[in-house]
Amino acid sequence: METVFSRKRLLKGLNKCSSYEGIDPIELAEKLNELAQIGKTEQGGVSRFPYTDEERKAKQLFNGWMEEIGLTIREDAIGNLFGRIEGEEPALPVVLTGSHLDSVPNGGVFDGPLGCVSSLLAIEALIKSNVPLKRSIELVAFVDEEGARFNNSLFGSRTMMGEVKKEDLKRFKDKAGIVLYEAMLESGFTPEHISSAFRSPDEIYAFLELHIEQGKRLETEGKNIGVVNGIAGPAWMSFTFYGETDHAGNTPMEYRKDTVAAAGEFILEVEKIPRKYSETAVATVGKVHVFPNGTNVIAGKTKLMVDTRDIDENARDQILEALKRSAHEISQKRGLSVEMKEEIKIPPVIASDSIQKIIRSAAEKNGLTTTTIPSGAGHDAMIMGKYVPSGMVFVPSHNGKSHSPEEWTSLSDCVNGVQIMKEALKRLAND
Amino acid sequence: METVFSRKRLLKGLNKCSSYEGIDPIELAEKLNELAQIGKTEQGGVSRFPYTDEERKAKQLFNGWMEEIGLTIREDAIGNLFGRIEGEEPALPVVLTGSHLDSVPNGGVFDGPLGCVSSLLAIEALIKSNVPLKRSIELVAFVDEEGARFNNSLFGSRTMMGEVKKEDLKRFKDKAGIVLYEAMLESGFTPEHISSAFRSPDEIYAFLELHIEQGKRLETEGKNIGVVNGIAGPAWMSFTFYGETDHAGNTPMEYRKDTVAAAGEFILEVEKIPRKYSETAVATVGKVHVFPNGTNVIAGKTKLMVDTRDIDENARDQILEALKRSAHEISQKRGLSVEMKEEIKIPPVIASDSIQKIIRSAAEKNGLTTTTIPSGAGHDAMIMGKYVPSGMVFVPSHNGKSHSPEEWTSLSDCVNGVQIMKEALKRLAND
Repeated sequence: METVFSRKRLLKGLNKCSSYEGIDPIELAEKLNELAQIGKTEQGGVSRFPYTDEERKAKQLFNGWMEEIGLTIREDAIGNLFGRIEGEEPALPVVLTGSHLDSVPNGGVFDGPLGCVSSLLAIEALIKSNVPLKRSIELVAFVDEEGARFNNSLFGSRTMMGEVKKEDLKRFKDKAGIVLYEAMLESGFTPEHISSAFRSPDEIYAFLELHIEQGKRLETEGKNIGVVNGIAGPAWMSFTFYGETDHAGNTPMEYRKDTVAAAGEFILEVEKIPRKYSETAVATVGKVHVFPNGTNVIAGKTKLMVDTRDIDENARDQILEALKRSAHEISQKRGLSVEMKEEIKIPPVIASDSIQKIIRSAAEKNGLTTTTIPSGAGHDAMIMGKYVPSGMVFVPSHNGKSHSPEEWTSLSDCVNGVQIMKEALKRLAND
Repeated sequence: METVFSRKRLLKGLNKCSSYEGIDPIELAEKLNELAQIGKTEQGGVSRFPYTDEERKAKQLFNGWMEEIGLTIREDAIGNLFGRIEGEEPALPVVLTGSHLDSVPNGGVFDGPLGCVSSLLAIEALIKSNVPLKRSIELVAFVDEEGARFNNSLFGSRTMMGEVKKEDLKRFKDKAGIVLYEAMLESGFTPEHISSAFRSPDEIYAFLELHIEQGKRLETEGKNIGVVNGIAGPAWMSFTFYGETDHAGNTPMEYRKDTVAAAGEFILEVEKIPRKYSETAVATVGKVHVFPNGTNVIAGKTKLMVDTRDIDENARDQILEALKRSAHEISQKRGLSVEMKEEIKIPPVIASDSIQKIIRSAAEKNGLTTTTIPSGAGHDAMIMGKYVPSGMVFVPSHNGKSHSPEEWTSLSDCVNGVQIMKEALKRLAND
């Protein structure tokens, strides 16, 4: 059984695709496959980092496709790529739609490209069917969403919305020591004119992005379309327990100040606490460091990172407080001390209610089942949602795999997503 | 406040030392201090590894002291160093006593050397007071007890009791790639003649070793002398939980197969299980590896090492079975799998009852308080105890610190230990 992307594997799903006016499943498969060849890894994934040859080639290819369907192309000073179809009232704020073409190292083929290609095919279908559009629609491929090279994720959308300053460009370096500013120059962009890439929220009526779920709820629940109700900004807190380093053989159980045991107790609390406050919240200990980490040594220090997310900011903050109380109680009871630090705290973004309704009704009209779903991962829509009404359409991810060559969405699920994007863009452009 | 060894700090305790016939506390302090200078580290500890200049110097110094009190010196083919005082009946099995002079990296000053120097001063006191000795007494400084260089601990005693073969010497290498066999040759020993270092248990009447406790029971309970009732051989088991690597943001709590959460639950069981089976048992998770160990990733694999010890082998084995059941139940309940592997399983050694009695009565006679205590750490006496009646005298370790420059035992505690060794050796040599 194939476990990574191939053209053949994708096209095997052709006969399961629903038929939608103006949407060609083969075109979708071929375009995804062409993008998948750029930066392809030995494991069958892709590595496409910002301001590299691979990213440039992917953008050139996408640029050609946008020209083919008649969009007017523009690239801003930092490399965000736009294709515009003029509406009947060009002075109105535009409907913006799209995703990104860059990837994590050895990432999947769908994360980003499927969003760009879906928006492209949706617009193509609208053009082919001569639907009148009041507002202009702009298709965007944001630069550097993943942050894989400069550890500076959501760079394109943040810059466009004015969150990045010229000085910032000199602060970020890649592993080879190349400064972001220099990398941009080298690629022919004009970081000096970064402010020319800024756009006012007034120019944008709405933002809509299609993305793979990167989770397994849709697949598990057997639903076609995820209607994203918000993006749960992550809060990262570190908890470091301090006890006493002792010999594992010579210290009776009752004399120990064992930080691994405290960590064990705390990990179980991290698992239990979220559901006390919110149905949508999650909390995870994914990173553990034990010092000195020797088999026969009772560890005097253990550090845990807790990742907590919810679309309900108030609930998330209550969870953080509950985690702090729990860590404090556990360390008190065990005669330890604990150091707690908020490392990252990004506010959640709520998806526009009216866009959620538009997506839901488009699905109903087409006989597709939906589930309302918070996004736990960050997306450009998280940035856009701070400034303009934004929404996201999720399509199922097989086994929830993402950021790996095993990332997979069937062709029929992709095609369903394009249809929803087509309907939603039509509605928004005529609002 | 001084936290590491110094001559001055040790001699500050001089006025608290009890006065015992033939035992000079200043001599004890000076000898410990002289040894502490060899291989001294910047942090105030010592690094003395087998078959190095530092170890050779320490042995030469100790050799000179043995000669000064009239012992007959012999070094075997692998570097175990012996000093013998002839008893009235030289054909009788000898009383063997001593410890080791090597150390762990940046180790403490007392672990090993205090045992050697205590036996030396005890024998010196017996000689000075002209006590008749029926049996000969042999003082031994075993080579390579810690295993710090060749990861081959208790090497000297194991070899002496015939547990090491010539072929084994070519299997062990240090970090620089030097083979044990070559290191021995280089230091002037004769690994070819390893069998000449073997001794028959028939030649040895008893083995007695003084050591610092390396735990905090004596200090916590305010006792002078630990009468060791056994050495709890360690059993090391690895437990590797396998689940699913997922995105921490996009996977609802109820869809997770989180191995860190399973590990947390198991760690708490490891803490609870020992006391169900034995009062003397301990179990520790000191080593944890999480894969991939990323803050925003639900870990698909977590490996723990559990160190379980008891002097009661039956209880220890019941604990191991209970740990296996617990890991199995936890993984079943959570839909995970678990791999369990016995990495090390050393049988416990019970200290000779009659030697325990001798130590206890010597303490009573001198108004010293005792507690019966299992040793959780391995010692040469663990090897010797498999073949001949063996016993150990523990003296208090401040804060239980060991294998670190903070290792500390007060001069009065050391001197009390020498007195018990003197009395016990006198009894054993006249048995």
